[in-house]
Amino acid sequence: MTDRSTDRFAQYPLDKVHRLFEPGPVVLVSTSEGRRANLMTNGFNMPVRHSATLALVVGPWDHSYTALRETGECVIGIPGRELLETVVDIGNVSGADVDKWDRYGLTPAPAATVRAPLVAECFANVECTVADDRLVDDYSLWLLRIERAWIDPAAPAGAEIHHRGDGTFSANGERIDLRARMTKWEALTHD
Amino acid sequence: MTDRSTDRFAQYPLDKVHRLFEPGPVVLVSTSEGRRANLMTNGFNMPVRHSATLALVVGPWDHSYTALRETGECVIGIPGRELLETVVDIGNVSGADVDKWDRYGLTPAPAATVRAPLVAECFANVECTVADDRLVDDYSLWLLRIERAWIDPAAPAGAEIHHRGDGTFSANGERIDLRARMTKWEALTHD
Repeated sequence: MTDRSTDRFAQYPLDKVHRLFEPGPVVLVSTSEGRRANLMTNGFNMPVRHSATLALVVGPWDHSYTALRETGECVIGIPGRELLETVVDIGNVSGADVDKWDRYGLTPAPAATVRAPLVAECFANVECTVADDRLVDDYSLWLLRIERAWIDPAAPAGAEIHHRGDGTFSANGERIDLRARMTKWEALTHD
Repeated sequence: MTDRSTDRFAQYPLDKVHRLFEPGPVVLVSTSEGRRANLMTNGFNMPVRHSATLALVVGPWDHSYTALRETGECVIGIPGRELLETVVDIGNVSGADVDKWDRYGLTPAPAATVRAPLVAECFANVECTVADDRLVDDYSLWLLRIERAWIDPAAPAGAEIHHRGDGTFSANGERIDLRARMTKWEALTHD
């Protein structure tokens, strides 16, 4: 891990982190069991509380499950279009078998508050700790506390990619600006 | 309510319902307290289990919360681009004050398994019952059982709209087909 790889990141305000998840991105989840870091692809995620809590589905069938259980920490990286083939490939293999960082040429970069690494090639990364695991046994559903967030200030808005759930994906198209219409939610619209 | 308004809908297979939510749509949640139906706008939702379970954030600050608590039922409607201004307007007013169906010219259509109505103008509707409310008190997070789903077969794929969390929205742009690459998840890629 080198500090150089995180030079592209600036801290992203916690009260805007929902903007990274509400649109429905496909993400990479980074975990670390001691010396060994792992990555998985995930499409089941959402904001739960503005600036505080995310929900994420990681099941016992995922190799990352054990690390999340044992360490209570992960980083969620949000990839852009240029990483999408890699993101799909990562979803096809298990960290039990291969070092995905090495195989796919991804760079683990040090996080500030957790041991799991940031994914330097993602345009945004969110450091998380487990906030509530009551629904993990029955639903593989983790509630995560948002600890710190990072963004590449040069990344265009809406760089995330949406999985349509069938192996096809959507990039974002037309941006529709209805901020002036959000009269009740004006506070959400500030830059 | 007339049956006519649901003529456009065909039943949508439950094992594909995650395709409606995984991309991250802004949705309308329909509830019914006895004779009175209500609608709310929601951007915090995701699939939890393929074909079985969804997660949705509805808090006590939402008028629909009481109906969801009392009836244990709702319908989630997924609007297309042509409904987006209405969806934002619905998010600005409370069902405690106005009949949103009437004010916004939306048509409640009978559901098959719940009393909450489908939104005839949405291109897809999913009938849900509450599966687990353990995280409602602390996180306003509801787990919903998927009971039945409907789609307008004429709706284009990817008609959903993504809220970027700040009053701007994204329509879907380029469709990227990586089905051939989903070797581990080939079963998800079938039509």
